[in-house]
Amino acid sequence: MTKSNALIITAGYLDRVNGKTAHGLLRGTDRFRIVGVIDEKYAGRDAGEVLDGKRRNIPVYASLAEFKAKSAKPAEYCIVGVATKGGVLPEEILSVLREALRSGIGIVNGLHDCVSDHPDLMELASRHGADVIDVRRPKPFHELHFWTGRIKEVRCLKVAVLGTDCALGKRTTAWLLTTAMQNAGRRAEMIYTGQTGWMQGAKYGFIFDATVNDFISGEMEDAIVRCWEEARPEIMFIEGQSSLRNPTGPAGSEWILSAAAQEVVLQHDPARKFIRGAEEYGAAIGKLKDEIALITMYGASTVAVTINTSQMAASEAKLYAEEQERELGIPVVLPLEEGVERLVPVFSRLIDERCPA
Amino acid sequence: MTKSNALIITAGYLDRVNGKTAHGLLRGTDRFRIVGVIDEKYAGRDAGEVLDGKRRNIPVYASLAEFKAKSAKPAEYCIVGVATKGGVLPEEILSVLREALRSGIGIVNGLHDCVSDHPDLMELASRHGADVIDVRRPKPFHELHFWTGRIKEVRCLKVAVLGTDCALGKRTTAWLLTTAMQNAGRRAEMIYTGQTGWMQGAKYGFIFDATVNDFISGEMEDAIVRCWEEARPEIMFIEGQSSLRNPTGPAGSEWILSAAAQEVVLQHDPARKFIRGAEEYGAAIGKLKDEIALITMYGASTVAVTINTSQMAASEAKLYAEEQERELGIPVVLPLEEGVERLVPVFSRLIDERCPA
Repeated sequence: MTKSNALIITAGYLDRVNGKTAHGLLRGTDRFRIVGVIDEKYAGRDAGEVLDGKRRNIPVYASLAEFKAKSAKPAEYCIVGVATKGGVLPEEILSVLREALRSGIGIVNGLHDCVSDHPDLMELASRHGADVIDVRRPKPFHELHFWTGRIKEVRCLKVAVLGTDCALGKRTTAWLLTTAMQNAGRRAEMIYTGQTGWMQGAKYGFIFDATVNDFISGEMEDAIVRCWEEARPEIMFIEGQSSLRNPTGPAGSEWILSAAAQEVVLQHDPARKFIRGAEEYGAAIGKLKDEIALITMYGASTVAVTINTSQMAASEAKLYAEEQERELGIPVVLPLEEGVERLVPVFSRLIDERCPA
Repeated sequence: MTKSNALIITAGYLDRVNGKTAHGLLRGTDRFRIVGVIDEKYAGRDAGEVLDGKRRNIPVYASLAEFKAKSAKPAEYCIVGVATKGGVLPEEILSVLREALRSGIGIVNGLHDCVSDHPDLMELASRHGADVIDVRRPKPFHELHFWTGRIKEVRCLKVAVLGTDCALGKRTTAWLLTTAMQNAGRRAEMIYTGQTGWMQGAKYGFIFDATVNDFISGEMEDAIVRCWEEARPEIMFIEGQSSLRNPTGPAGSEWILSAAAQEVVLQHDPARKFIRGAEEYGAAIGKLKDEIALITMYGASTVAVTINTSQMAASEAKLYAEEQERELGIPVVLPLEEGVERLVPVFSRLIDERCPA
């Protein structure tokens, strides 16, 4: 994949959960070379440092004008790097997009509010020859797949990376697991299910929440079957979405039933008490053991729990993990602190047992 | 609602599960007055008699030409009354639709394959001033709702009519329950979630499988909140879709979590052994008690089981129901044979206990 230079717009959310698309792109992307972030609030700092304290030599600029004045590298794309209220493109982002298009810079947008539905932006894009990519535009009927049962032909180990809530690191964990297995010499692939996965350059997947509901299972099956036929991995990690008991949009049973994932890795944030977006409603995040029981009921086994520690002290997180590991009897891992290498022998053994070459 | 005269096209499937849209319309619709069915295979018979042995004075015609020659009533619409392979409009139906449009008869189509995506049909429609309604065209982003938690404001009893498989009578049971409660003097409303519900004239609902996935929970909540605000029912029956463990597209947790249905009525066909569309895959339909346990895990209680008896002898069905009723300890009812009046006192009591006026 040839990488295009891209800027990320984060509109004040670079260090917030809303900036999760930006976070994923800063952690790594094969589709783009990130040359800067536009966020007035963090201007002058290094984007990696704002994210997790690790310098990545990606400067934050206050504006597109500042980027153009100071950067030696030109940008081919501006990527909308935040989730906004109601999925709408707010005026503060629209104004940057207009400025970008006037400079002939293309747009990559993963919000439900498509740039191509804004006639003024499209007029600018066509006048300045700039490209517009709406990652989350629902595919039309004739490009969609129904579920057929062909998933049965896929003979590798399939692991669903589910979570107890949305926006708590499922994609990052899936990506770390895939990389760790590859580093251990195993043929591993990640199946993306969100817009950020596509932006990061994952080759197989679909965008779960922008797909017309009747085709969710079929699009998931199709992505996995294509991956199996073309890449012949020994193991696939399928990025989860939302959570099984999330009233704002429950999801997860598709991974076990339609994608026939035999194993689950469950991502959890112990500091989060309520489902994101359902705090006022009072939807509490369930206990790990109840979530695991529900997963068992659907026919998969949970092989490990992975912890999002963003709201915990390191020592506290470590204690929590040890305690849960004793209680649940499966590995409980802190991916960003310790890596996920501890799980490599677990999955290697499962591959050898269940899917011998 | 002023009723329009309509013909139903069933293309050889009038007495098959594929004809379930036609079946619903023959059982009753407030949106249309059904003046005939076009189905060469059953031409000359009464459509009601073909459906379930009950005459409804709706003739079956071999062709649109025969209808025009013999019927005293003109048709304003042709309704596509069948589910087709892959959701596609096959040539045998397209040719009838072209003929209808040439006579100025409009089209109501609930397949994913939209008539408005067929330029030749749209050209005919515009030339002959005929109306085209694609019930299942996904709504655009700006017309869709995210889930907000406003479901909390709805203070009536909410009952989800779920099933152990798709296409086994959930909609019919929801409609019978709504009518039975109304006949008993209770303010009851049905929330539709499929294209047939809309065609039957149900006022509140949305089309589950044609909705972009991120908006499923919000559209469901919005339909229920609107119904509550406008009609102030004491009880709502929410039509289910698919089944919780259906690999072709699992569904059901939305009804319990997002619509906050406290009670479930579970529709079941004892003669069906495998999930429809997953027979070769080998997805067996689970036991009733396991399905009820899964529903319990999501936080709702199953108050009754309703039985689709289409593949059973009457005596066999009765025996099965009695046996299950003893085993499960809840009413097990045969809606089409016995009606659902036995459940009226059950729901009346629940309304009085949980949602006193």
